[in-house]
Amino acid sequence: MGYNLLKGKKGIIFGALDANSIAWKTAERVHEEGGEFVLTNAPIAMRMGALNTLAEQTGSEIVPADATSIEDLENLVEKAQEILGGKLDFVLHSIGMSVNVRKGRAYTDQNYAWTEKGWDVSAVSFHKTMQTLYKKDAMNEWGSIVGLTYMAAQRVFPDYNDMADNKAFLESIARSFGYHFGKEKNVRVNTISQSPTPTTAGQGVKGFDGFIAFAEKMSPLGNATAQDCADYTVTLFSDLTKRVTMQNLYNDGGFSNTGVSREVMDAFVKDQE
Amino acid sequence: MGYNLLKGKKGIIFGALDANSIAWKTAERVHEEGGEFVLTNAPIAMRMGALNTLAEQTGSEIVPADATSIEDLENLVEKAQEILGGKLDFVLHSIGMSVNVRKGRAYTDQNYAWTEKGWDVSAVSFHKTMQTLYKKDAMNEWGSIVGLTYMAAQRVFPDYNDMADNKAFLESIARSFGYHFGKEKNVRVNTISQSPTPTTAGQGVKGFDGFIAFAEKMSPLGNATAQDCADYTVTLFSDLTKRVTMQNLYNDGGFSNTGVSREVMDAFVKDQE
Amino acid sequence: MGYNLLKGKKGIIFGALDANSIAWKTAERVHEEGGEFVLTNAPIAMRMGALNTLAEQTGSEIVPADATSIEDLENLVEKAQEILGGKLDFVLHSIGMSVNVRKGRAYTDQNYAWTEKGWDVSAVSFHKTMQTLYKKDAMNEWGSIVGLTYMAAQRVFPDYNDMADNKAFLESIARSFGYHFGKEKNVRVNTISQSPTPTTAGQGVKGFDGFIAFAEKMSPLGNATAQDCADYTVTLFSDLTKRVTMQNLYNDGGFSNTGVSREVMDAFVKDQE
Amino acid sequence: MGYNLLKGKKGIIFGALDANSIAWKTAERVHEEGGEFVLTNAPIAMRMGALNTLAEQTGSEIVPADATSIEDLENLVEKAQEILGGKLDFVLHSIGMSVNVRKGRAYTDQNYAWTEKGWDVSAVSFHKTMQTLYKKDAMNEWGSIVGLTYMAAQRVFPDYNDMADNKAFLESIARSFGYHFGKEKNVRVNTISQSPTPTTAGQGVKGFDGFIAFAEKMSPLGNATAQDCADYTVTLFSDLTKRVTMQNLYNDGGFSNTGVSREVMDAFVKDQE
Repeated sequence: MGYNLLKGKKGIIFGALDANSIAWKTAERVHEEGGEFVLTNAPIAMRMGALNTLAEQTGSEIVPADATSIEDLENLVEKAQEILGGKLDFVLHSIGMSVNVRKGRAYTDQNYAWTEKGWDVSAVSFHKTMQTLYKKDAMNEWGSIVGLTYMAAQRVFPDYNDMADNKAFLESIARSFGYHFGKEKNVRVNTISQSPTPTTAGQGVKGFDGFIAFAEKMSPLGNATAQDCADYTVTLFSDLTKRVTMQNLYNDGGFSNTGVSREVMDAFVKDQE
Repeated sequence: MGYNLLKGKKGIIFGALDANSIAWKTAERVHEEGGEFVLTNAPIAMRMGALNTLAEQTGSEIVPADATSIEDLENLVEKAQEILGGKLDFVLHSIGMSVNVRKGRAYTDQNYAWTEKGWDVSAVSFHKTMQTLYKKDAMNEWGSIVGLTYMAAQRVFPDYNDMADNKAFLESIARSFGYHFGKEKNVRVNTISQSPTPTTAGQGVKGFDGFIAFAEKMSPLGNATAQDCADYTVTLFSDLTKRVTMQNLYNDGGFSNTGVSREVMDAFVKDQE
Repeated sequence: MGYNLLKGKKGIIFGALDANSIAWKTAERVHEEGGEFVLTNAPIAMRMGALNTLAEQTGSEIVPADATSIEDLENLVEKAQEILGGKLDFVLHSIGMSVNVRKGRAYTDQNYAWTEKGWDVSAVSFHKTMQTLYKKDAMNEWGSIVGLTYMAAQRVFPDYNDMADNKAFLESIARSFGYHFGKEKNVRVNTISQSPTPTTAGQGVKGFDGFIAFAEKMSPLGNATAQDCADYTVTLFSDLTKRVTMQNLYNDGGFSNTGVSREVMDAFVKDQE
Repeated sequence: MGYNLLKGKKGIIFGALDANSIAWKTAERVHEEGGEFVLTNAPIAMRMGALNTLAEQTGSEIVPADATSIEDLENLVEKAQEILGGKLDFVLHSIGMSVNVRKGRAYTDQNYAWTEKGWDVSAVSFHKTMQTLYKKDAMNEWGSIVGLTYMAAQRVFPDYNDMADNKAFLESIARSFGYHFGKEKNVRVNTISQSPTPTTAGQGVKGFDGFIAFAEKMSPLGNATAQDCADYTVTLFSDLTKRVTMQNLYNDGGFSNTGVSREVMDAFVKDQE
């Protein structure tokens, strides 16, 4: 029961792993709003996930793609246009992974082969996706591309490790490609900087539960949920935000502009006593 | 013909002067989306404007208020709730005026009585409005308050004069009050930083036409129009952006994150030859 | 025992109240570096303070001035040039005061006469000082003007109250006036955004000790002290930073770019258990 | 003829190619200020450059190192400590190179093998350098590490191409590593975001002369020169900035906070007529 905000719009949604994923919630909301899409994920992620369920639920087809492979992306963009019957209006990039985090390597003790792998998967894949869309002229005018990011790109959260640098790179890609995609095709590109969200992927980060509780207390409106992010993404895919581009948009209950909340100060002071 | 995004929502819209106003366009769009509201403006602005036309067109009542007067604001907030039959869901603050600009005083030659007047009208009025709403507990939970601002709060546009400082103050109010309104009442507060827009009020700024042309060429998607701003405001009033708060949101075709565009560089280089 | 970084340079230092003041420490350091200056403070602040001691120690004269009074500022700028024998090279503005804070009024319950008073003293005084210097052509080329500020201008620290908005206004003045002072006279204008510092003035803010301890734990290098700020200001007055202007410079041990430190997270998690 | 600001301090300076290099000027200035250092550059860059001249002039030794090679960096850090007789106080990272730029590939048509090469050389090398210093415990307490960057990390300058994303990654590394190096060793890490500077390396960027002229007109104090950057770096290496860390510091004559200058507007308007 949506508003028909995306009626007639077509797109691709990357990164739905399971029902906890932001991309999963977004797919459900886009479907409610009348949008049609192809779902995609890396073959390895698809084995672990339950993408078929989502595809059935939303009447979508799945085209597997490793987002670091140009060949896979070219195939995806072609197939998506065939399946949906025309150019695309929206794309969601929700991909991130750090091998250093997974393997427990400290930021000051990186394995650089892993650093590169994480960078390629988490950040360059966004460029590769847009370059493929751009070269194939696959986006409709006033289309909208959204990538998910995290505020570690601006400020240090020690356990976020090299994902911070990857997210900074990703946000820069959004600006850089947003310029060219805007000038040439009137397509907008933005990132949403989301509250820490208890997705299956997020679990990999050390002390994540404590951090979610901390963010909840720091944010005047509490943490934005995956559902909130899905709603926000719908507005960015809609025709109501046509001139918003090259922005990094915080969906975080106010965390980003809160220096400290009373609750966090009180907890700190109590602990010091 | 909207999406019913604001069905059942009630609010106040400040600052509609004539059909060129952002607030005017916003009132029209909010009406299309099913929202109901009271229109308000300063008595002096109402004499010059055509607010009655808008009121008829949108089925709204007008409650005049000088936004620097607590008494007027208290009356407005009470009347609005009586007229609309309950608490409010949204408020648009679109008020700005610099006496120094109007009278042609340079930034380095301010008349400080005028500086204070402009600050009170353009910035403090936003605090006074929110303080009145807050004290009267006039906002519904998950309500949304939006103020309009301009990027001169971050970077210098020499002719924007003391309005730059006023906008910086206004944006700070949005963050500060957003914290308290969020914590206490789950109300969100944001500012939209809009492209230069050819409103009647904007005409007062020297060299405004040239500047609009410059911004158009700098912005990958061109300048955001008053209509674009109205659309964007609708998303911020809707239930789809519930956890977005204390943000300054650029609606500017990408100007804010463009260092220089090819077109502007080309014009510059040609002129230098 | 300094480096002679400011040998031959002349200036004005506002806001030294007592030996805890940042301005006091700065005066001492500027003196060590070979700079000469006039000290100034509001008549009321001078009664409570010990400015004569500092004047003797640094071989300086005192010219009292209410920094909200153009007449006083004109007198100050004239006298300073007479006393020092020429135009000025540096000015430190270290003035801030909120009546709402002093009287314990919440941010959501401001007395607007007090808001205006605090704004005039804390923010407009910086403009008035620069406008007076500018009109009297009292600054040497490549001179340097520094104002002190706090990160509450960017993020909410609830007890900082309306000083947050005043600091946002002050920082905007630095940019706006920095543009004009740069273009016309090659003078630079910057603000230093300093760690919370246990000055006598800072004591007025509720829960200040707890907050200083919090900031200490959040900052990878610990809080910057008044002495650190004095050192940093010396670099900004020196010839080594000639092209740094219109910037807000954090001197805060890294607080501003730390999302959360391990120590603060640990204290939080422990308190939650 | 310096101030003895760096007397007794030891360090490493990367990236001096020829007398136009920022790193070259910095080495000269550090030497004037009493600092001692080892010079380093990639073997390939050394063949094209004139590093021996600088080494003689400053009484320094050269240790070649490919900054993407951990082995080379380990050797460099060991040798530097042997040569200088102890731990290090300062490090300058001034390395950047994009194969896509050199080969004329558009941002929307990247060769990703080249993208990776540029990322490794321009950005990851900063992490590798710091990780090597950190693991070898080679920095003295209150040491200072500086990397050079450019504002394309924040805003799009279309011809800057993938270097924009690399600089965003570099600046993120400065924050991330600055946190850990601060907490563990009281070492500070900052980046200087410098005006476009006519170095030999900078020549590779298309339309660079026009862009330098544009930046000159946009900046209220004009472009910061290589000499200005050397001076500024000296302050960051000195004991006067001990609590400044994790910052990106603009040395740009005010460009970064200027929306538009009168000169640029005038050139634009003239061209449009």
